[in-house]
Amino acid sequence: MAVIQPQTLAAGVANEDLVANDHFKTENGIRFAGVHLLLDMWGAAHLDNPEGLGQAMEAAVKAADATLLHIHLHHFSPYGGVSGVAVLAESHISVHTWPEHAFAAFDIFMCGEAEPQRAAAALQEMLRPSRIELTEQRRGVLPPISSVECP
Amino acid sequence: MAVIQPQTLAAGVANEDLVANDHFKTENGIRFAGVHLLLDMWGAAHLDNPEGLGQAMEAAVKAADATLLHIHLHHFSPYGGVSGVAVLAESHISVHTWPEHAFAAFDIFMCGEAEPQRAAAALQEMLRPSRIELTEQRRGVLPPISSVECP
Repeated sequence: MAVIQPQTLAAGVANEDLVANDHFKTENGIRFAGVHLLLDMWGAAHLDNPEGLGQAMEAAVKAADATLLHIHLHHFSPYGGVSGVAVLAESHISVHTWPEHAFAAFDIFMCGEAEPQRAAAALQEMLRPSRIELTEQRRGVLPPISSVECP
Repeated sequence: MAVIQPQTLAAGVANEDLVANDHFKTENGIRFAGVHLLLDMWGAAHLDNPEGLGQAMEAAVKAADATLLHIHLHHFSPYGGVSGVAVLAESHISVHTWPEHAFAAFDIFMCGEAEPQRAAAALQEMLRPSRIELTEQRRGVLPPISSVECP
């Protein structure tokens, strides 16, 4: 029988600090930092409009029940693409657009109780793409607290 | 024989505009917007130090031959985690840290001629993690210009 030890703690981090400040989440017995969605959108609105994209991102933050700390949008030229990031208490949402291909790449990374799938749904509702491609990845997955090999 | 048409253009985008302003890239005959790396780091340095993380991100931007437009780092408490984003002319780098688990989640999204793998290597060199997990995804992959079914 072999018992696998949990993730080694950072140097200087005491066990009681870990319990008090543990911001990882648990789902179906798996502990991890957060969920990262990569959302490719084709044929969406506002691809060359930073104001419209910013409003969609703010609606997504609200729909996910997340907290906006900082937002920055950069417009590359009057009719060109936009790059934008929203820093959240629960991680971030980003967007980059290529109007010449009717394409926008969003990513939505959220930890804690925030709900990234609701953010994706809000972006879709605000921007009305003709097609989306969505992938989901868990970030920072910890090994199990204990793991017992059966004989 | 069936010929599959290329990606439909955005309304109002003329063919000559597309050629002049096409910022998609081509690799091995595949056209796409950019490469997105998700980089999980365990046991790295500076997890509660926005200045150290900012320096690592700026070194990563330089190593990738990318252009920094805007950087923002948020420190959640004096010894707590950090959230940061660097907006680039070629997309972005983000970081979120959980010092209580010795964990940092980076993402590196780059289009154009910038080299995201070099950014990842620079982050690794600056932050000296004990373990990394890296995934790579192409964003905005276009259908082929033409596709011919063989008889």
